[in-house]
Amino acid sequence: MQRFEYFSDQDVQKIHAATLQVLETVGVDFGYQPAVDVFKKAGCKVDGKRVFFSPEMVMDQVAKAPSEYTLQARNPERNVTIGGDHIAYIPCYGPPFVHDLDRGRRESTMEDYTNFVKLAFASRSMDITGGMMAEPNDIPHARRNAEMIYASMRYSDKPFMGGAIGAEAARETIEMAAILFGCSEAALAEKMPMISILCTLTPLAYDDRMLGAIMEYARAGMPQLISSLSIAGATTPVTMEGTLVVQNAEVLAGIVLTQLVREGTPVVFSGSSSAAAMRYGTLSVGAPEMAVNTAATAQLARFYGIPSRGGGAITDSKLPDAQAGMESMMSQLMATLSGIHFVLHSAGILEGYMAASYEKFIIDDEICGMCKRIKRGETADPAKLALDVIAQVGPGGEYLTNMHTFQNFRQEFYAPIMEQKEAYAGWKEKGGESIEKAANRKWKEILDKYEEPAMPDDSLRELEKYMEKKYGN
Amino acid sequence: MQRFEYFSDQDVQKIHAATLQVLETVGVDFGYQPAVDVFKKAGCKVDGKRVFFSPEMVMDQVAKAPSEYTLQARNPERNVTIGGDHIAYIPCYGPPFVHDLDRGRRESTMEDYTNFVKLAFASRSMDITGGMMAEPNDIPHARRNAEMIYASMRYSDKPFMGGAIGAEAARETIEMAAILFGCSEAALAEKMPMISILCTLTPLAYDDRMLGAIMEYARAGMPQLISSLSIAGATTPVTMEGTLVVQNAEVLAGIVLTQLVREGTPVVFSGSSSAAAMRYGTLSVGAPEMAVNTAATAQLARFYGIPSRGGGAITDSKLPDAQAGMESMMSQLMATLSGIHFVLHSAGILEGYMAASYEKFIIDDEICGMCKRIKRGETADPAKLALDVIAQVGPGGEYLTNMHTFQNFRQEFYAPIMEQKEAYAGWKEKGGESIEKAANRKWKEILDKYEEPAMPDDSLRELEKYMEKKYGN
Repeated sequence: MQRFEYFSDQDVQKIHAATLQVLETVGVDFGYQPAVDVFKKAGCKVDGKRVFFSPEMVMDQVAKAPSEYTLQARNPERNVTIGGDHIAYIPCYGPPFVHDLDRGRRESTMEDYTNFVKLAFASRSMDITGGMMAEPNDIPHARRNAEMIYASMRYSDKPFMGGAIGAEAARETIEMAAILFGCSEAALAEKMPMISILCTLTPLAYDDRMLGAIMEYARAGMPQLISSLSIAGATTPVTMEGTLVVQNAEVLAGIVLTQLVREGTPVVFSGSSSAAAMRYGTLSVGAPEMAVNTAATAQLARFYGIPSRGGGAITDSKLPDAQAGMESMMSQLMATLSGIHFVLHSAGILEGYMAASYEKFIIDDEICGMCKRIKRGETADPAKLALDVIAQVGPGGEYLTNMHTFQNFRQEFYAPIMEQKEAYAGWKEKGGESIEKAANRKWKEILDKYEEPAMPDDSLRELEKYMEKKYGN
Repeated sequence: MQRFEYFSDQDVQKIHAATLQVLETVGVDFGYQPAVDVFKKAGCKVDGKRVFFSPEMVMDQVAKAPSEYTLQARNPERNVTIGGDHIAYIPCYGPPFVHDLDRGRRESTMEDYTNFVKLAFASRSMDITGGMMAEPNDIPHARRNAEMIYASMRYSDKPFMGGAIGAEAARETIEMAAILFGCSEAALAEKMPMISILCTLTPLAYDDRMLGAIMEYARAGMPQLISSLSIAGATTPVTMEGTLVVQNAEVLAGIVLTQLVREGTPVVFSGSSSAAAMRYGTLSVGAPEMAVNTAATAQLARFYGIPSRGGGAITDSKLPDAQAGMESMMSQLMATLSGIHFVLHSAGILEGYMAASYEKFIIDDEICGMCKRIKRGETADPAKLALDVIAQVGPGGEYLTNMHTFQNFRQEFYAPIMEQKEAYAGWKEKGGESIEKAANRKWKEILDKYEEPAMPDDSLRELEKYMEKKYGN
C-alpha cells in the first residue's frame, strides 16, 4: 500500500516555517525550573519560564531523535518496532469510567484494568499493552501506578506503557522494569520495554509534572510520546493550519528538551488535536477535523524523520452505537493510510476519552484488524493476477469450488473476529443480535479462556517485594 | 486534499496489461444478438455469443468516452458534474426491504420510495436522487419504473437515476425525461438530466436485459454506469488482483459497446466487487477487501481517463449498529480519499443491499458530510496559519472567546446533522439516546417539514397523461 498525503509538500513546508517563527518569537512556557535551566545552558533566550528557540537549534536537536527503534517485550516474539513502515495499535488510555452492556456505566476499578490487560494480551491487533486503560479508582492514589505497571507486566508479555504523572511515576516505572528484566538501568536503555505519553499544556506550555517525567524518562533513555492535544477554537486557532502550527511548536519544543537531556532519546511525534464542539466549548474527537489533523501529523513527523502518533478508535458517542463505529473507523483508517506509526486509543475508548467499553474494545479490535488488512497491501505479480485460473474458468463459470480459491482464501481474505456476515434469515434465526451483543459474548469468552503467560517466579516475587516495601500490603 | 493511490503505477500497468490479455484471449459473452452484431461490424472476432477484443480496439474506443460531464437538474442550482475533482453522493439502490426503528423490517412500498426521494432532496450531501431506493412492491411490476421515475422527478429537483431493467425501461425513462424538460430527445442528449446503472453478469458476461438498456441509453446519449459487482472467491478469483482483472475486462468491454453505439456516450467506470464471506459463499460488502477494490477502481478509471464509481455507505449488518457505522465509514472514506467520482449507496443501505433503513439514511448522510469536509482540503495560506492570532494569544491563553474563532468557526468546522457531541451528564439528562434514536427523530422531522419543489403544472400533467395512457389509472 502506498501512503496517503493529505497536504501538499509546499503546505507542509509552510506549516514548518510558521512553526519555527512561533518558537523563535512567541516562545513556549516551561513551568519547571530544571527544564528552563537545560534550555538556558543550551543557549536559548529565556525570560522567566518562557523559552525562545532559534530555528537552527530546533533542527539540530530534532535531527538527533531516531527515526526507528524497537521495544523489546519480555516475550521476544512480541517485540514492536516503532517507525518505518510499521503501525502499532495500543488500547484506550486514561478513562475514569468503564462501560459494559450488563452493568452500564460506572467508575472503573483495578479489576477492569486487569481485564483490559488480558484483552490486549489476547488481541491479534494490539501490539502494546496499556497504559491506564481504565483508572483503578478503588486503589489509593499513591500506589495506582505501581499496581497498573505490575498488572501490565504480569498478565501480558507484550511491551507496555509507563506511568506519566510526574517524575516519581516515571522513576517507579523504570525501577520496576529493571526488576522485570533483572538488569541494570543502563542495560534497560538497550531493551526499551515500554513507552510513555507525556503531554503539553496547550497552548504553548508544559507543566511541572509532565516535564519531570519527560526528563526522568529521557535520562533513562526510555522512549516517550511528546504529545499535544489541542482543541481548535478553544486552546488553539479555529483553523486547522493554525492548530497544526501550535501543536507542532509544542511537540518540537518537547522533543528538543529530550535530546538536550540525552542525545538520541527515542521519541514519538504525537498529535491528537481536534475541533471544538462549539455549542459546548468542549473537544470533539469524532469530528472530521480530527482525521485531517491525524493525516497532517503523520506528514509533519515524516518531514522531521520521527515516528508519529495520531488517530485511534475514538468517538464522542456515549454508547458503542453506529456513531461510535463510524467515528472510530474514520480516525483509525486515516491513521493507517497516512502512515501513523503509533495509534493510541485503538480499542475500547468512548465519550471522548472518558470511558472504556468492554464491547467497544472488541468492536475496535475488529476495526484494527480490517485496517491492518488494508495496509498489508497488494502486489500485482503473476500469481495474484491469476490469468491461468481466469482462462480456465472462462466466461459464465464459477470460482467457489475452484482449487485456487480453496488454497488461497485464508491468506487473501480478512477473517473477522465476530462473524456477522450471513444473510438476514440465518442471522435472525440465531437470535438477530447487534454487534454490541456479539461483542459482549466475545469479551467474556476471551476472559474465560485467558491463560497467564509464563514468567519467572522470582521476577514476580521481586516486583511484589518492591511494591510491599514502598506501599505496604 | 491530495488523492490516495493504493497501488503503485507499475501495479496498475500490470493489471491493465493482464486485462487486455483476457479480453483478447478469453473473451466476453454477450447474450443479446444486437450487441454481438455491433462488435462483429466493428471487426471483433466473434464465436457465437463470445466476443474477443484486440488491445488497440479497446484503447481506441475507451479513449472516446468523456472524462468529465455535467448532469443538468430541472433546478440548475442542482446540476452535478461527474469527473474531475468532484465527488457525487447518491442514495441506496435496489433493496426489496425497508427497515425503521418503529416497525422493524418489512417489504418496501411506493410510500417508502417517495419518502426516500424526499429525504434525498432535503439532504445537504446527496447530489442525485435515486434510482430504486426501495423497491415499490405494492405497485404492479409493469408500472414500477414509471412510478419511481415520476416520483423522482416530482418530489426532488436534483438529477435522478433512470430505470435499468431492459430496453423498455430505458426507453420509458428517456421519454419521461423529454416530457419533463419539454424538449426533443436530441435536445435531451445535451441536458443529460439522469444517469443509470447497467451491470455485467460476472464472470465475463452480459445478459440481454442489461445489454438492451445499455444500447438504448447509449443511442440517446444518456450517461450510464457500466458496473461490475464481482464476488472474489465466488464469481472471480480469490485474489484482489485477479478480481480486478475480471472486473476491469467486463467494464471495458461494456464501455467499448457504448462507444460503438454512439461515440462519446458519457459513462462511469463502475466497480463494486468485494470478497466472499467464505463460510456462506455470499458477498461481504463490509469486508476490508471492498475498500481495496474501491481504491483500485478509482486508480484504474483514472488510468483510462473515465469517471469512476465505487464505495458507498455499505454494510453487511442487519441493523444500524456499530458494525454498520464502521463498515459504512470504511468504504465511504476510502471512496472519498481515492478520488471516486460517483458513490452509489451513499445513504440508507443495510444487509449488503437487501434493505433500506430510514435511520441509516440519516446516519450515512452524516458520514457523507464528514467525508466532504475532509475532501474539501486545506491550504496553508497566511490567513489559515493565523500567526498574528497565535502571537496575540500567546502561551497559556485561550481562543474560545477570541474574535478570530467567532468569525471563522462556521466555515472551518463541519456542522453535524445530529448533535451528539456533549458530555455524558448533559446527554444522559436529555434521555441518553443512541444515534439510531436521534436519527429516528431526524427523518420524521425532515419528512414533516418537506415541501415539494416548484414544477410547472403542465409538466406534471403531461407526465401523468403519459403514464395513464400506458398503464391506465
